[in-house]
Amino acid sequence: MSTLTPPLSQRLDGLRSSAIRDLLKLTARPDIIGLAGGLPDEELMPRDRIALAAESALADRSRLQYTESAGWGPLREVLAARESARLGRTVPLAEVFVTHGSQQALSLLAEVLLDPGALVIVEDPAYVGALQVFRAAGARIVAVPLDTEGMRVDALADLLAAGERPAVVHTVSNFHNPRGVTLSAARRRELANLAERHGFWVIEDDPYGELWFDRPAPAPVATYSPNVIRLSSASKILAPSLRAGWMVAPDAVCRGVELLKQGADLCGSALTQQITADLLADESWLSGHVDKVRGMYGERAQALVGALRERFGDRVVSTDAAGGMFVWVDFTDGTDTAALLPRAVDHGVAFVPGSAFAVSDGYRGSMRLCFTTSEAATLREAVERLARAAAQSTQS
Amino acid sequence: MSTLTPPLSQRLDGLRSSAIRDLLKLTARPDIIGLAGGLPDEELMPRDRIALAAESALADRSRLQYTESAGWGPLREVLAARESARLGRTVPLAEVFVTHGSQQALSLLAEVLLDPGALVIVEDPAYVGALQVFRAAGARIVAVPLDTEGMRVDALADLLAAGERPAVVHTVSNFHNPRGVTLSAARRRELANLAERHGFWVIEDDPYGELWFDRPAPAPVATYSPNVIRLSSASKILAPSLRAGWMVAPDAVCRGVELLKQGADLCGSALTQQITADLLADESWLSGHVDKVRGMYGERAQALVGALRERFGDRVVSTDAAGGMFVWVDFTDGTDTAALLPRAVDHGVAFVPGSAFAVSDGYRGSMRLCFTTSEAATLREAVERLARAAAQSTQS
Repeated sequence: MSTLTPPLSQRLDGLRSSAIRDLLKLTARPDIIGLAGGLPDEELMPRDRIALAAESALADRSRLQYTESAGWGPLREVLAARESARLGRTVPLAEVFVTHGSQQALSLLAEVLLDPGALVIVEDPAYVGALQVFRAAGARIVAVPLDTEGMRVDALADLLAAGERPAVVHTVSNFHNPRGVTLSAARRRELANLAERHGFWVIEDDPYGELWFDRPAPAPVATYSPNVIRLSSASKILAPSLRAGWMVAPDAVCRGVELLKQGADLCGSALTQQITADLLADESWLSGHVDKVRGMYGERAQALVGALRERFGDRVVSTDAAGGMFVWVDFTDGTDTAALLPRAVDHGVAFVPGSAFAVSDGYRGSMRLCFTTSEAATLREAVERLARAAAQSTQS
Repeated sequence: MSTLTPPLSQRLDGLRSSAIRDLLKLTARPDIIGLAGGLPDEELMPRDRIALAAESALADRSRLQYTESAGWGPLREVLAARESARLGRTVPLAEVFVTHGSQQALSLLAEVLLDPGALVIVEDPAYVGALQVFRAAGARIVAVPLDTEGMRVDALADLLAAGERPAVVHTVSNFHNPRGVTLSAARRRELANLAERHGFWVIEDDPYGELWFDRPAPAPVATYSPNVIRLSSASKILAPSLRAGWMVAPDAVCRGVELLKQGADLCGSALTQQITADLLADESWLSGHVDKVRGMYGERAQALVGALRERFGDRVVSTDAAGGMFVWVDFTDGTDTAALLPRAVDHGVAFVPGSAFAVSDGYRGSMRLCFTTSEAATLREAVERLARAAAQSTQS
C-alpha cells in the first residue's frame, strides 16, 4: 500500500498545526530579532543547580525506574505545600497531579470533562495550545473578550443569562498569553461565583503567575471555589526540559486524569521530577533565582514598552507588561499586522500577528511581542526596525 | 458544587484502571517475592553512564529549552541509523518520531489511525496497555490467539477471508508480554503480505527485541512492508525514567502523530533525549551493557523455568523464556490461577493471573511470571512457595 487509508488522510486535513510552533521557525534566522517566539530565556535557566540536582537524584537508582502515573510522591508533596501556601488552605496529596507540562493537563482534562459538542468558553484572543485541545475534543467553542482587567466576566454572565451552559471556562489568569493582562481580584471572585451558581468548571491556566515585576498577582481564582481546576508549570521559572506541569483539582478529577494518563504515556520521568522537587523545595535558592528572572524580564519589558511608546506614540496602545513574557500591541492607525509581518521580517524583526490568536476573526491590527530572550538594547533596535517596516508599509 | 457534573462521573465508570498497574501494589510488601510486576531491574540500569551523559548534556543550555515535537534531532539521527541497520534499508529522519515511551506512540497512533468503531485485531492474551488504548479509542476489538510461534496468522487470514476489514493489527512480535513467545519469520512475512493485500496497518510493538538470550530475534515485521509501523523503546535496555520510545512509520503517519503530540504535551525533554542519544550512540559501551542485561535475565529465566519444571512436572506447561521479561505458565491440572493468587500471596509470592490479560474470557488456568527483578535463588524459592500454595489449593 503506497497511499494512506482514507481515515488518516481525512484526519490530516482536519488537524491544524499549532500556529505558534510553525512561527517559531521564523526566529531561527540569525539576522532576525525574534519577538515571535514564546520561549523563556535559556541563559536564565539554573543549569548548575539542575546539574547538582541531577547528580543527587542519580544517587538513588529508583529514580531510573517507572514511577506513579500521578507523579513522583516527593514532588507531589512539595507541590502540595506550595499550593497550600498559595491557596490559603491545606491541599491534600490526592488533589495534586503531575503532568508532562501543563499542556498535558489541558489535553487530559478535555478528555475527562468534555463530551463531544460540550460548550467551552475561552478568552479571545486565546492561548492557541488550549484552543487546539478543545477543538480536537470536538467542543463547541464560544469566546469572551479581554480588557485591561482580564476576561470580561460580565460578557460571560451575559452568555449564561442568555442560556448558554458551558462545561468548562478556560482562563489564563495571570499575564495572559497573548494579551498580557491579569484578571482583577473582583472578577476572580465573580468568575468563581458564576461557576458555582451554574455548575461549570473553571480551568485556571497559570504558567506565568510567578513572573510578576512590581507586585504579585492577585490570589488565584481557585482560592474562591472548588470548581476551579488550577494548572501551573515549572517551565517558565526553571526549565521546559524538566517537562513538569501540575494540576490542583478535586480528587475525582485527578483520578479520572490518572486513568487517562496510564493509557496516554504510563507515567512521567522520576528523574526530571526529582530534579524539579529538589529545586522547588530549596526555598531560599528558588526565591533568589525567581527574583533574578523577574528582574531581567522586567527590565526587558520596560525597554520594549518604552521604545514602543517613544517610537510609535499614539499610533499604538500596548500593555504595561507587569509580568509574564509578552507585550500585546494594538495599532490605532489601521495597520494590518499580517501584511506588516513579511516587511518586518525583511527589516530583520519577527512578531506574531494578533489574528493568529483570534478564536474566529479579528485582531488584525494587533501583534504579540515576546521580550524574554532579547537584551534591552536589542529590543530597542527591534522597535526601530518595526517602525521602519511600518513606515514603508504606510507609504506603499 | 460539591458533586461532580454527570459527564465526569459517567466517564469514571466507563474507564478501567490498568490491571497491571493495580497489581504492582502487591509487589510492594517486603515479605512477598514479586513476580507480578513488569519492571526491568533497576540494579542493571546504567546509572553511572547516565550520570556522565547528564553532565555532558547540561554543558549545553539548549538542552534545558523546549524541543521539537518529533523529538530532539540528534536522537532521531541515532535512531534512524540503528533502525536502518535493523531494517536493512535507509530509514530517513522524516520516518523517525520520538515518543514519551512507546505507550505514547500507541495512544497517538490510535487517534490518528482509528475512527470510532474501526476494527482492531489484537493478540489474546494481550498487552493490556494496548488494549486500554484501543478500547478508549472506541475501536471494535477482535482477538486472535497465540501459539509457540506467536500470533496465529492463519486465524487472522480466516477472519479476513470471512470479510473482516481491520484498520490496525497489533502485535508484540518479540518475547511477547504476557505470552513470552516470538513471531516466527515465516509468519512475519505472511502477516506483512496480508497487510498489503488487505490494506491495513500493522503496529509492531517491540520493546523486548534486544533482550534475546541465545540468539537474536528474527528480522522485524517492518522489514517486509511499509504498512508496518514499528515501535520500540529505551525503557527495557537503558532506563524507563528516560521516557524514550520511538516509532518508525511513513512520513504522513509521523506528521499526523506530530500534530497530535503538540496538543498532547507539546514536546518531550531535550535533556533525557540527549542522554538517550548519547548512550545509544556509544556502540561499544551499549553492546557490553546489553550483553550484561541479557546474561543476567537469561540466567534468571533459566532458573525460573528449571524450577517450575522440576517442581510442577507435567502439571504445567511453561514457555522457554528465550528472551524478554516474562514466563507464561499454563496449568494442565485445572488449577484456577485467580483463586490461587490470594493463597500464593499468603505463602509470600505474587504473580498475575492469565485472566488479567484475556481480551474477553479465558486463561483462567494460566499465569504470567516476571523474572527480571529476582536473583536465581529467590526465583527458586518463589517456585517452592507457589508449589506449597498450589498444594494447599488442591487440598481445600
